[in-house]
Amino acid sequence: MDSPAPKRIDAVATRPAFARWLGRTNSVTNTFLSAGCIPDLINIAGGLPAPELYPAAEIAALARKAIEEHPADTLGYNPVEGLPELRDAIAARFGTPHLRLGRENVLVTTSGMQGLDLLGKVLIEEGGLIAGQFPTYLGAIDAWRPRHPAYRSLLLEQPGFDPVAALAGAQFAYTVPNFSNPTGRLVGVPLRRSLVEAAHATGTWLVEDDPYGGLHYDGAPLPRMIELSGPRSGGGPYDGPVVYMGTLSKEIAPGLRIGWVVAAPEMIRALAMAKQGSDMCTSGVTQRIALAALESGLVDRLQPLLVARYRERRDALCAALAEHLSESFTFETPVGGMFVWAVGRDPAFDTDRLLAAALEARVCISPSSVFDPSGAYRRAMRLNFTLNPPERLVEGVQRLAAAVEAVRQHRG
Amino acid sequence: MDSPAPKRIDAVATRPAFARWLGRTNSVTNTFLSAGCIPDLINIAGGLPAPELYPAAEIAALARKAIEEHPADTLGYNPVEGLPELRDAIAARFGTPHLRLGRENVLVTTSGMQGLDLLGKVLIEEGGLIAGQFPTYLGAIDAWRPRHPAYRSLLLEQPGFDPVAALAGAQFAYTVPNFSNPTGRLVGVPLRRSLVEAAHATGTWLVEDDPYGGLHYDGAPLPRMIELSGPRSGGGPYDGPVVYMGTLSKEIAPGLRIGWVVAAPEMIRALAMAKQGSDMCTSGVTQRIALAALESGLVDRLQPLLVARYRERRDALCAALAEHLSESFTFETPVGGMFVWAVGRDPAFDTDRLLAAALEARVCISPSSVFDPSGAYRRAMRLNFTLNPPERLVEGVQRLAAAVEAVRQHRG
Repeated sequence: MDSPAPKRIDAVATRPAFARWLGRTNSVTNTFLSAGCIPDLINIAGGLPAPELYPAAEIAALARKAIEEHPADTLGYNPVEGLPELRDAIAARFGTPHLRLGRENVLVTTSGMQGLDLLGKVLIEEGGLIAGQFPTYLGAIDAWRPRHPAYRSLLLEQPGFDPVAALAGAQFAYTVPNFSNPTGRLVGVPLRRSLVEAAHATGTWLVEDDPYGGLHYDGAPLPRMIELSGPRSGGGPYDGPVVYMGTLSKEIAPGLRIGWVVAAPEMIRALAMAKQGSDMCTSGVTQRIALAALESGLVDRLQPLLVARYRERRDALCAALAEHLSESFTFETPVGGMFVWAVGRDPAFDTDRLLAAALEARVCISPSSVFDPSGAYRRAMRLNFTLNPPERLVEGVQRLAAAVEAVRQHRG
Repeated sequence: MDSPAPKRIDAVATRPAFARWLGRTNSVTNTFLSAGCIPDLINIAGGLPAPELYPAAEIAALARKAIEEHPADTLGYNPVEGLPELRDAIAARFGTPHLRLGRENVLVTTSGMQGLDLLGKVLIEEGGLIAGQFPTYLGAIDAWRPRHPAYRSLLLEQPGFDPVAALAGAQFAYTVPNFSNPTGRLVGVPLRRSLVEAAHATGTWLVEDDPYGGLHYDGAPLPRMIELSGPRSGGGPYDGPVVYMGTLSKEIAPGLRIGWVVAAPEMIRALAMAKQGSDMCTSGVTQRIALAALESGLVDRLQPLLVARYRERRDALCAALAEHLSESFTFETPVGGMFVWAVGRDPAFDTDRLLAAALEARVCISPSSVFDPSGAYRRAMRLNFTLNPPERLVEGVQRLAAAVEAVRQHRG
């Protein structure tokens, strides 16, 4: 078809402004993206699984079978809340005698990230208050930025921490109690109990984001906060204030983009309204693969393999840090998850500057500023140990030590 | 693990209020959901494809092959903007000599709906103005509701319609020029040209939502507005004001949840920022299936089959409407898409009331109120012809005629 020559040049027309929040994002993502072009870069910045552990052949077979045997479910539109069978499987997976869960307690989400986005849509008006574990997950900050929230720092480990005062008046409290992103810390049972108590007392929703719960390397898993809250629902389906979020991204493969929210039915209904206007429903292809992976035992068979591999890598990273970086950074060995959090001994050390030097040394880390909604906290960094084999982690830490030295000399 | 008895009952704590927009949704979705339980219901309400035309065996084979051959792409995290190969394939599919498109012009979305959600996130602040073709797609209204927009009706077919006045001051204009949802109308070339001119003159973004473009039953497809705008970009990659949106939902299967946005690079970058906080990236499994479906020619082979089947169904529905409902409704035979729009001859006829009577007669339709952001327009209804075979469409119209009669008698 023919396209006519333009009638006039329109250099004068001004485009409408983009929404304000787009001016407030940090530039670290672009830095990371450009880092992808550096040859032989060692990436210990991201939260990436070990790709060699993806059970590709099994998932490929499950995918074919799912589409052949369930063409309507996989290829058609699905209920907004998720495939009923998958909702039931998730309810069965997380339910206990003290935590009664039915289908009405479960929403399937297109990735764990979508759960955070939907939560913002249903609970945050401009200026609405989030009490967020500090420092906190970068992705959560990204998800909520378009809703213009206000933040109150939830300083869980500070002496004298008062959970009721911390939660009161907030729309919700955001926590990652298992191997927190970014600090890798495990929130202990007494603190879990007092957060649950505070949520019941104040009415504030208590978000328990748990992408790493399956990755515990030392000792048994602790009870989930939603389990501690369960007995309050008087024997009926759970209707308490804990909003539990999970994902298959760390336990099988991020590429499925399957997550879930387990919560009171009124919260699930609100989130489903938001999901309807976000992507209508999650792909039936990936939902059916997820269901088959859960039901066939693939998820449970994979877990000990992941744990063994990641434990070995955690130990390699921590040993290298102790050897090469302990003069300038303190850290604790995490008992689970994907990250080590290293804090500069010098309060004025700036890990934003370290990132630039690290990239020159061909290693990429996550500076602490990206985990602070205000961007001000610059003393620490997050290091990932799941993506790289031990020898690459050691090499990465050696490069990082050289970068630290370069930054210190430049300052001195 | 043990869960202690609750220390106290907390019936007094009040939960935080949900965001205001949740109070403003209409109840039609719930009506439709309950309708699902009516035995032998004929559903001519939704925009659903014919499930017997899903190429399940081919997609199952493509899925297995995609995961086996591309485990990192399918099972890992992907670039926010989409798999580079899929972005290139989409650019190649929609580019022409007058519309130069590169990867930087394309964002892959998790369904067409997600494109609408992301658009709202980057362009709407509270009270921001949308110029929307009236009546408009229910899903778009859903997607934008959490951002609290203001609406200006774009009455494209009204005599004296002034595109510049209609677009000026709006953040974007929303149109479905091919077989509009809900009216099934085709926007002609002169009007397309004048909308494009007005977008260039005012700077307002012009959204061309095109889920039905492949479903044309009479005559050749008209040039896309983005093609008409293409020559203005001076021979470089497209940088004009048209934001073109598409999906594979109608051309292969909704269950893939694969859509795309083709637009100026600055718009793609803004949408990608919003996508990062929405679901991080689209599933590599479904993206690789979509790419294989495009590259293997499956999409192009399927299209004539869909068109032939849907043309026959459109004709059956329109013949039945002419025979049974022409006394009370006027309609035009649509030249494409999935819907017939029937307008009550009596201006006071209320299709919200008709829906209740129709459900009693075991047929489900979409009343016009759901396509009006204010909910006030109640004279018309949308009827779908793609889901049901001809004999069920005829039976559905007969049931609907009985329901219309019941409503009229009840009024008289």
